Amino acid sequence: MERIPILKMGDLLLVTIQVDMHDRLAMTLQDDLTSRIVKDRARGVLIDISALDIVDSFIGRMISNTAAMARVLDARTVLVGMQPAVAITLVELGLTLHGVQTALNVEKGVALLQRQAD
Amino acid sequence: MERIPILKMGDLLLVTIQVDMHDRLAMTLQDDLTSRIVKDRARGVLIDISALDIVDSFIGRMISNTAAMARVLDARTVLVGMQPAVAITLVELGLTLHGVQTALNVEKGVALLQRQAD
Repeated sequence: MERIPILKMGDLLLVTIQVDMHDRLAMTLQDDLTSRIVKDRARGVLIDISALDIVDSFIGRMISNTAAMARVLDARTVLVGMQPAVAITLVELGLTLHGVQTALNVEKGVALLQRQAD
Repeated sequence: MERIPILKMGDLLLVTIQVDMHDRLAMTLQDDLTSRIVKDRARGVLIDISALDIVDSFIGRMISNTAAMARVLDARTVLVGMQPAVAITLVELGLTLHGVQTALNVEKGVALLQRQAD
């Protein structure tokens, strides 16, 4: 099961990260996601991290890079479901999720993307 | 990360199964899901298994039981994203997903639940 599923919802794609990320899995996700953005003509990508207790610099960079790849394919990325402890750690460690918007949950993320598309 | 996230989308809940299921994880999922159905007043549950290469009798029973629990709480369950190989194995092994509807993907699952609510 070394693949993170990408779910299509209208013209958005939803990725739920539940497992420990490592180099190869991150690269597979970026390959799959960029292919799917083109194939499904997606306008936005939602990345749900509600299952993650820890976001370290590796995951942070992976998310930023994925968002940058999506952006050059004309899709916006919203990170949703961040746990309070993760938000605290990100700020305390001085990690920034460059170029990534955040929203409280999937619903608010969808609303954010829809507002920006109007 | 021993918890499968449950995402709310309108009055539906979405569960993406990506990791190997074991007893305790399945029980945690059933606890979480039943609580969330009540708390969020969910009308339907979508269980995505597109990341699963294998569905054995344990997972099959877990899904059936989860659907039965949802049903007594007045929520319908739709299993989505089944891989072709899984469909073949299920039929060849004679496993039935009792009381569970299936749909090709999340979008079709949402449409199925909305049709039934009308």
